[in-house]
Amino acid sequence: MAAAKSIAVVISSTRPQRINPFVAGYVASVINSIPQTTAKVELLDLATVNLPLFNEPLVPGEVPADDPTPHYHYEYTRAWSALVRKYDGFIFVTPQYNWSIPASLKNALDYIFHEWNGKPAAIVTYGFRGGVKAEPHLREILNGLRMGTVEPTVALKIVKGEPEEREKQMKETWKKDGADEKITTLFASLLKHFEAKN
Amino acid sequence: MAAAKSIAVVISSTRPQRINPFVAGYVASVINSIPQTTAKVELLDLATVNLPLFNEPLVPGEVPADDPTPHYHYEYTRAWSALVRKYDGFIFVTPQYNWSIPASLKNALDYIFHEWNGKPAAIVTYGFRGGVKAEPHLREILNGLRMGTVEPTVALKIVKGEPEEREKQMKETWKKDGADEKITTLFASLLKHFEAKN
Repeated sequence: MAAAKSIAVVISSTRPQRINPFVAGYVASVINSIPQTTAKVELLDLATVNLPLFNEPLVPGEVPADDPTPHYHYEYTRAWSALVRKYDGFIFVTPQYNWSIPASLKNALDYIFHEWNGKPAAIVTYGFRGGVKAEPHLREILNGLRMGTVEPTVALKIVKGEPEEREKQMKETWKKDGADEKITTLFASLLKHFEAKN
Repeated sequence: MAAAKSIAVVISSTRPQRINPFVAGYVASVINSIPQTTAKVELLDLATVNLPLFNEPLVPGEVPADDPTPHYHYEYTRAWSALVRKYDGFIFVTPQYNWSIPASLKNALDYIFHEWNGKPAAIVTYGFRGGVKAEPHLREILNGLRMGTVEPTVALKIVKGEPEEREKQMKETWKKDGADEKITTLFASLLKHFEAKN
């Protein structure tokens, strides 16, 4: 039996007042309720990774593809490279900022190149209208990184309000909109990507 | 007579080995050779602005539209707000990173909101194939910020090589590709935006 695949659910916004950890936590909880033993899923928080705005003297695509990690100039880049290499696939959970993705996510993606190549990527957006404008931008960027992006698109509507009431309302909206089924299908698409490769 | 409009040519990449200052300098030099007295053009370098990854506790669109500057939490945001307010229009000169714009530019755009609104924006991309994939992303983001984006698209092809030889080769390529005429037309479109508003 093949070893269980390791999937990261990426918390993409790093601003202090973000609700991204709640949204990503919801996505992970839906996945963890699916009976299956072929993948383990964990949260990966870009705020914890804490990269500065890109300042490597190297071009990420120009380091050796088979072992890029030791070639970066900064220790934080080597740590990020090693961390991303540990995962077999990614679910990017991202807000929409000004009709695209936040700089925090673009920055983390741009820091490295070979580490993403060939791995499957799923996209979950959120915003007052579901963050749907961030999705085509992110999908194109991930294709540029030669990741295999999978369907369907999951767009979660958020609301304003006090934390507890807000979270309750959002969960109700998501369940009503069929988000759990979409997340389940999205996760199945990710797993299928591995079967196709084996 | 109306006061001369102030236009910033924005150096959008902040990585140490960037050629963005050379490319933006070329764009500014073409514009400065156009005989006209209705606008003054200067370089605005995002590396000098030196913003960290977005960490304001506020949502930029939620500060008062008529005087946003004093409402930001961090001094560097207030300085960026005041600087952007000084300009009437912008020419964003950007590289393409992974089929989109660099995080450094998205970050600078996302830090503020009202300061951009209603001002005209021109786009110049560069890359080995002209950076043409960055253009539709940036145009959509600028439209999201309610800027008036103008045409045509100017895409400048870059080459590899030692600095002096490289710059010479790029200038020759750009002149051969009609870049000077396109930049001149783009600048005229920016100025027309002001006439339309007066």
